[in-house]
Amino acid sequence: NKRKIAIFIGSRANYGTGKAVMKAVKDHPSLILQTIVGASALLDHYGEVVKLIEADGFTIDARVHMLIEGASPLTMAKTTGIGMSELATAYDNLKPDVVIAVGDRFEVLAAAAAAAYMNIPLAHIMGGEISGTIDESIRHAITKLAHIHFPSSEAAKKRIIQMGERPEMIFAVGCPRMDLIRDILEKKKLDLSFEGVGAGAIDITKPFLFVSQHSVTTEFGSGEKDINAILDALTELKIQTIMLWPNSDAGSEDVSRGIRKFRERTKDNPPFPLHIFKNLPVHNYFHLMNSTACMIGNSSSLLREGSFIGTPGVLVGSRQQGRDRSENVIAVKHDKKEIVAAIKKQLKHGKYKSNHSYGKGDAGKNIAAVLVKVKPDIQKLFREIKHNGL
Amino acid sequence: NKRKIAIFIGSRANYGTGKAVMKAVKDHPSLILQTIVGASALLDHYGEVVKLIEADGFTIDARVHMLIEGASPLTMAKTTGIGMSELATAYDNLKPDVVIAVGDRFEVLAAAAAAAYMNIPLAHIMGGEISGTIDESIRHAITKLAHIHFPSSEAAKKRIIQMGERPEMIFAVGCPRMDLIRDILEKKKLDLSFEGVGAGAIDITKPFLFVSQHSVTTEFGSGEKDINAILDALTELKIQTIMLWPNSDAGSEDVSRGIRKFRERTKDNPPFPLHIFKNLPVHNYFHLMNSTACMIGNSSSLLREGSFIGTPGVLVGSRQQGRDRSENVIAVKHDKKEIVAAIKKQLKHGKYKSNHSYGKGDAGKNIAAVLVKVKPDIQKLFREIKHNGL
Amino acid sequence: NKRKIAIFIGSRANYGTGKAVMKAVKDHPSLILQTIVGASALLDHYGEVVKLIEADGFTIDARVHMLIEGASPLTMAKTTGIGMSELATAYDNLKPDVVIAVGDRFEVLAAAAAAAYMNIPLAHIMGGEISGTIDESIRHAITKLAHIHFPSSEAAKKRIIQMGERPEMIFAVGCPRMDLIRDILEKKKLDLSFEGVGAGAIDITKPFLFVSQHSVTTEFGSGEKDINAILDALTELKIQTIMLWPNSDAGSEDVSRGIRKFRERTKDNPPFPLHIFKNLPVHNYFHLMNSTACMIGNSSSLLREGSFIGTPGVLVGSRQQGRDRSENVIAVKHDKKEIVAAIKKQLKHGKYKSNHSYGKGDAGKNIAAVLVKVKPDIQKLFREIKHNGL
Amino acid sequence: NKRKIAIFIGSRANYGTGKAVMKAVKDHPSLILQTIVGASALLDHYGEVVKLIEADGFTIDARVHMLIEGASPLTMAKTTGIGMSELATAYDNLKPDVVIAVGDRFEVLAAAAAAAYMNIPLAHIMGGEISGTIDESIRHAITKLAHIHFPSSEAAKKRIIQMGERPEMIFAVGCPRMDLIRDILEKKKLDLSFEGVGAGAIDITKPFLFVSQHSVTTEFGSGEKDINAILDALTELKIQTIMLWPNSDAGSEDVSRGIRKFRERTKDNPPFPLHIFKNLPVHNYFHLMNSTACMIGNSSSLLREGSFIGTPGVLVGSRQQGRDRSENVIAVKHDKKEIVAAIKKQLKHGKYKSNHSYGKGDAGKNIAAVLVKVKPDIQKLFREIKHNGL
Repeated sequence: NKRKIAIFIGSRANYGTGKAVMKAVKDHPSLILQTIVGASALLDHYGEVVKLIEADGFTIDARVHMLIEGASPLTMAKTTGIGMSELATAYDNLKPDVVIAVGDRFEVLAAAAAAAYMNIPLAHIMGGEISGTIDESIRHAITKLAHIHFPSSEAAKKRIIQMGERPEMIFAVGCPRMDLIRDILEKKKLDLSFEGVGAGAIDITKPFLFVSQHSVTTEFGSGEKDINAILDALTELKIQTIMLWPNSDAGSEDVSRGIRKFRERTKDNPPFPLHIFKNLPVHNYFHLMNSTACMIGNSSSLLREGSFIGTPGVLVGSRQQGRDRSENVIAVKHDKKEIVAAIKKQLKHGKYKSNHSYGKGDAGKNIAAVLVKVKPDIQKLFREIKHNGL
Repeated sequence: NKRKIAIFIGSRANYGTGKAVMKAVKDHPSLILQTIVGASALLDHYGEVVKLIEADGFTIDARVHMLIEGASPLTMAKTTGIGMSELATAYDNLKPDVVIAVGDRFEVLAAAAAAAYMNIPLAHIMGGEISGTIDESIRHAITKLAHIHFPSSEAAKKRIIQMGERPEMIFAVGCPRMDLIRDILEKKKLDLSFEGVGAGAIDITKPFLFVSQHSVTTEFGSGEKDINAILDALTELKIQTIMLWPNSDAGSEDVSRGIRKFRERTKDNPPFPLHIFKNLPVHNYFHLMNSTACMIGNSSSLLREGSFIGTPGVLVGSRQQGRDRSENVIAVKHDKKEIVAAIKKQLKHGKYKSNHSYGKGDAGKNIAAVLVKVKPDIQKLFREIKHNGL
Repeated sequence: NKRKIAIFIGSRANYGTGKAVMKAVKDHPSLILQTIVGASALLDHYGEVVKLIEADGFTIDARVHMLIEGASPLTMAKTTGIGMSELATAYDNLKPDVVIAVGDRFEVLAAAAAAAYMNIPLAHIMGGEISGTIDESIRHAITKLAHIHFPSSEAAKKRIIQMGERPEMIFAVGCPRMDLIRDILEKKKLDLSFEGVGAGAIDITKPFLFVSQHSVTTEFGSGEKDINAILDALTELKIQTIMLWPNSDAGSEDVSRGIRKFRERTKDNPPFPLHIFKNLPVHNYFHLMNSTACMIGNSSSLLREGSFIGTPGVLVGSRQQGRDRSENVIAVKHDKKEIVAAIKKQLKHGKYKSNHSYGKGDAGKNIAAVLVKVKPDIQKLFREIKHNGL
Repeated sequence: NKRKIAIFIGSRANYGTGKAVMKAVKDHPSLILQTIVGASALLDHYGEVVKLIEADGFTIDARVHMLIEGASPLTMAKTTGIGMSELATAYDNLKPDVVIAVGDRFEVLAAAAAAAYMNIPLAHIMGGEISGTIDESIRHAITKLAHIHFPSSEAAKKRIIQMGERPEMIFAVGCPRMDLIRDILEKKKLDLSFEGVGAGAIDITKPFLFVSQHSVTTEFGSGEKDINAILDALTELKIQTIMLWPNSDAGSEDVSRGIRKFRERTKDNPPFPLHIFKNLPVHNYFHLMNSTACMIGNSSSLLREGSFIGTPGVLVGSRQQGRDRSENVIAVKHDKKEIVAAIKKQLKHGKYKSNHSYGKGDAGKNIAAVLVKVKPDIQKLFREIKHNGL
């Protein structure tokens, strides 16, 4: 009787992290993988991650559509509620022995809470980190529901202990995205086709910028202004740029609108070559991070993968506030001048050397090894530590 | 422009705690109360708390049915998901400035998460305590979603600080149930009518036992055995007993079945006078706690209200595991002998003196006073404290 | 490539009808059966039909909890909505070629509408009949969503044609419940065990009455008065009685309360021997209909199965208003005197002879044979018939 | 005590029809209007109809987000289910005396079924018509749930009678969209601003084409090919064109994609001046129908409003299959040649004279007058008519 390990993949980012774990679980003789795909991972609008998953050889055990249209804080809440109800049904039908929840996006709380309520041991990957947006609250709430913790770094582990979790259930295995990066940069090649939405002649053998900017849910409504600051900076720099379409967080419509208007406005005379991808296969995303002269935006990958790869980065705004970072990143406000200055500095510096604070690229196997043996107590109990409140 | 304070009442117990806060908010000139009633608080089966609320002079601003039948861990999860989706709609229509979530029952996470996702400041009452069942996880998850904390005791406050919350947003105002108790024991009288389900001749001027036993969600399936241990003990003691019907947690059917079978089995020759209430008005509940010779079961009121009132109590099983308690309680296992011995000991001891570790009975007003002025930062940020993990 | 035929079973009554179809589909070499169980069929409170289904050798392909507690018109609507959302997910995962919806209970609209919306050919069993309650509206709404119709009688077929459906997609195959009856009365024996809730000494070798009374959703609130009229009549007649617990329609609580109060009230001196079954295996239900001196209530089985079996019946109230009936039934109001008189008349008459207007007991095989070959047009189109409005 | 009349507005099209009724109800001294807005009517992506409603002076009593992203048959089903659950809550809080459902879009079944289940008299506008897509099934299913019918024409009334409804509850008052048209063409002027998405120099004082093409849910997947046939025809004709973005039916993404690709493909050398509106205020829509040289597509407005206005029209494909039409329309397949030929024919013919088979423009007041007095029986009963099945 092998242990059935269900993983919930709700987004492009989720799969980027989950893939190495899924592979390790699937390949382990004592484990059975159950793949549940939901939320934006099912939607064409966000690049239909489900097709990538199947192309990678995984079987989908349940599909759960749950995304309420609107991309607002309200619809994020409704989506999560509906997801929780439907994922409970999926667990009831699949009867997993462990559920894995990855990260801190809004819909992940649905997967986590449903498992905890149903007395299914919950394993959480990427807990204990610090960031901005509602993700900050969700991540820690999931930690308090989880039975097994797989933080990406020792700093994260220390915070999970602080929150009252038992050290013997916390495994600082590194971040599974690093596994993927190592694998990809070793084996695959960049294979970009510049079809679809986009403008003009990008030559990736020459220096290019790479932009990945999402909305900030706790600053709902400012997304258009924020992306505009970046677009203004790019307009001044006039360097060829590859950009990613925003994910499905509340406010993504604002970011999208800013991009659409910019393209409409400049379509007769684009100030710089710009190509926008709705979705990028994970391996191309990392190859671009590996090749770009400077990555700009507020994606957590700037800090995490960027640190491992050594990508020169400009972190714009509050979205990753408080998240551990290494020397590859310069943080600036949504201000054209600051952005321009920081990009110039990074262009001068060039690539950084690889930093292993988020793992060495073996997290997937480490996690599988733990899941075979771990015996969590289904009844959680707050563990008090000595402290004086400071 | 007064602040609109929405409170979610999802159960009988919720209202017992929330009432003093609702009264203080409603009476405050700078606040407007919005009352949202849902889950078992709407159902006849659980005593239709909504009628008590209206009888107390409160207006219901929204009613949200959400309870999926089944009373299992699965249906608890589904209920919470559906509640989250529907409460988001209620907030969207009512536009509260603050949402108050009370306690740690499963459906309360729905009210809390919906507010946090929608960037509405979330105030949480009764955080930082420790107990058994899934409540333990839910309570702390809500803390990590909440912006303002109203723990009942200093010990609870210390745990909330440990979890990374900012001390300036934590107000140890005491437990609002104590307000109610003080008020009730001062003003109202016990007014029992022994209609409805029940057996025979209870004389409350003579010593009687009082039983309040619920299911333990993390020990799903053991409810019948557990209540039977208590019923066996009562059968040996042969003292007149008043009992409460279990709440709607997963597993409540098991407890109910045990009680039903016992009554069926003994209906021709009841071993002791027994009366069972499906629902008790809050004031009678506290009066019974004030008058009983010994209270038995696993309700948290044994520890909290019992401590304030000085009720001699026998705490059975793991449901309140870890919760702070004072000298009025003897804890035992689900074992007939242990239960009998502990009851006998309490009968000999008699009433304890009042203990104020859960507040002095002025929490409602304290909370209203804070809600008028507090300015929480909608973006939460983990606060690291110095600790060595021990 | 065999056709995958999914059937939705949402209640005890549903399974009584669906069973013969499920058996025929499962046994057919060109069809694959997919069994989806939901609503009250999953709940212990209603006898957990799902266990009977598994005991009969069927595999459950999906379980969908959906019943919102409350048993009111409001919660019926919410249940159906949630069911529609979740059944869509189930169809998405199972990919059936045809979905079968049985009858007209509230949750069946969820199963039917989800299939029609998803362009899955919908087959409907028991359309075209006439009755009271909201079932009357639901049944015909399902007809207008369905692509293939399996009415139980020629009269029903004529009404489906009237509603604008194409005659070549209407198959008057008879009612599959008759298959079951024929099979049961031939092969199985009555095997009653008088455990569980109940009172006393029923001797089924002597004349006994059999009561099956449900709530009437469009007369919400009158359930208690209605059952009381029957209980009063029984009290006068003093004949031993077997009774069934009501189903989960809105208002069922009212009927249940009436029964509970009666038993409480008369527990020291029961006016007649009374045994109440929460759930009866289908075969015992039909054996009791075959043996009873007179069946009383408002269940449709009085008219349908009763006609086939020849059960002397007293139909009380409006619930089956307009439904085709044969000579075995006397219809009366909720009036003690009328009920008493009708029962006496039936006791005198004794058993009726079998009537085949609802089929000969071969509907299951007929339906399977159609499902193998039928090619419905997924785009429905109203078929106008000549009429002058009279 | 005035009657409370709730209306559900779920889309742009819904409001176009509902507006005249809302105005008449709001202005009637014996009626109170309750406006419930949901589905795509709340979304920016579809033009945020809710803002138009408020700008017209109506108060929104409840907002219900329900649209599951995906625009597929599956998500249409899920959306309807979630809508049914949430609208039940809205009715429970608003307690309307009558609910009005308009038309046949997928989410309207949610509003209709919730009302019928809750024993709230349901009035249906635009029943009894014939069309293609799933709308055909939904429209008639709503008829079988409705208590009061307001068909737009005598032909539609006859079909409602055929379906077994009682003639005294069917009021052929005309279509309320005609009220609006009459009012608009009399009072308002065309006031187009060619901002937003679009290309170039449209001069509406010269002949222009007007395109409104939606997806066909029962031909899911063909939307891109269909719009391409039209775009090819336009490319050949080279006449300036105004186009509308498709609505939120399943498959709308396909139509949108076709349009997007066309614009991308031809952006350097547009074959004809093309402007696309995401949303048009209703009055501009009708003015364009009044001024266009020829309207092309599959919107029902071609047949209904077009008939009243006398718009020369080319109806493409099956979406309005079977719907009553008058002489202003030429029906063709999704074939470039046929489309070109039909447009040329209409350009030669010019405007048609107004046809009143869909009403004279006084439906709103007629409906309000009925709603004041009508006393529907909440228990529906199928009315058999004499027919021989032909």
